[in-house]
Amino acid sequence: MSGVLGNHFVTQIGILVNDVEKVSAAYAEFFGLEQPEIIITDTADIAQTRYNGGPTEARAKLAFFDMGSLQLELIEPDHQPSTWRDYLNEHGEGPHHIAFVIEGMQEKIMLLEGKGFPLQQKGEYTGGRYAYMDTFKELKVLVELLENDKQ
Amino acid sequence: MSGVLGNHFVTQIGILVNDVEKVSAAYAEFFGLEQPEIIITDTADIAQTRYNGGPTEARAKLAFFDMGSLQLELIEPDHQPSTWRDYLNEHGEGPHHIAFVIEGMQEKIMLLEGKGFPLQQKGEYTGGRYAYMDTFKELKVLVELLENDKQ
Repeated sequence: MSGVLGNHFVTQIGILVNDVEKVSAAYAEFFGLEQPEIIITDTADIAQTRYNGGPTEARAKLAFFDMGSLQLELIEPDHQPSTWRDYLNEHGEGPHHIAFVIEGMQEKIMLLEGKGFPLQQKGEYTGGRYAYMDTFKELKVLVELLENDKQ
Repeated sequence: MSGVLGNHFVTQIGILVNDVEKVSAAYAEFFGLEQPEIIITDTADIAQTRYNGGPTEARAKLAFFDMGSLQLELIEPDHQPSTWRDYLNEHGEGPHHIAFVIEGMQEKIMLLEGKGFPLQQKGEYTGGRYAYMDTFKELKVLVELLENDKQ
């Protein structure tokens, strides 16, 4: 009973916003936390972002809060094509994904695709890589896979 | 820097669905977990549910999964007025709230209302009580307060 990911520990909740500075300040005040530095995702040559099977220049501004055993991630996407931008346009601001740490990204993506959960977007970041799988129809939320390089 | 709740540890993610049996089965299969028993919230005389300042007969079918240090809650509301039904009608299926365990429900509700976060819905359950505060405009997700009675 280990499931397709081999892990059911939610490590992150991702929330789409129109103004990450403003929402980040609201979280900091509400929860009594320091306002984190805003991070901008890498340019396409480094991030190698692919969305719906093709390359995209899309980037996003991110803010991370530690909320117990998980991270809460605020995401302000730019207007290039991405899961973030399309989801925000379709659903409005609000939660977008729950994330799970996995091992073996390529194998996990193929396993999930074989079970009817298409890859929606993937990319690289310093120290690892991510993939958003289209689980919305079945799970009513997107699942993000996170693979961190061994230190 | 303790914030208005005195706690920033996310204990639950709540997701609205149209068919809790179907989505619960999908979660069980995806994550390799046992399918939990479906729970129906108490009738109005016991739950004492209040929504937007007045009593409501609203009930919901619930399914809970342990996903690491937090619970993932699936919620299928009936068609009586509730935050669940109105949010589902407005936003469609998907995440509705993140929850935090607090102490002193009445004081916390008043504190939050004083800071511009209105009480949206509250009710009783066996062993405790809950309140959904309208934090959507600022935090882009609803915050639920959970108070469990001392054993």
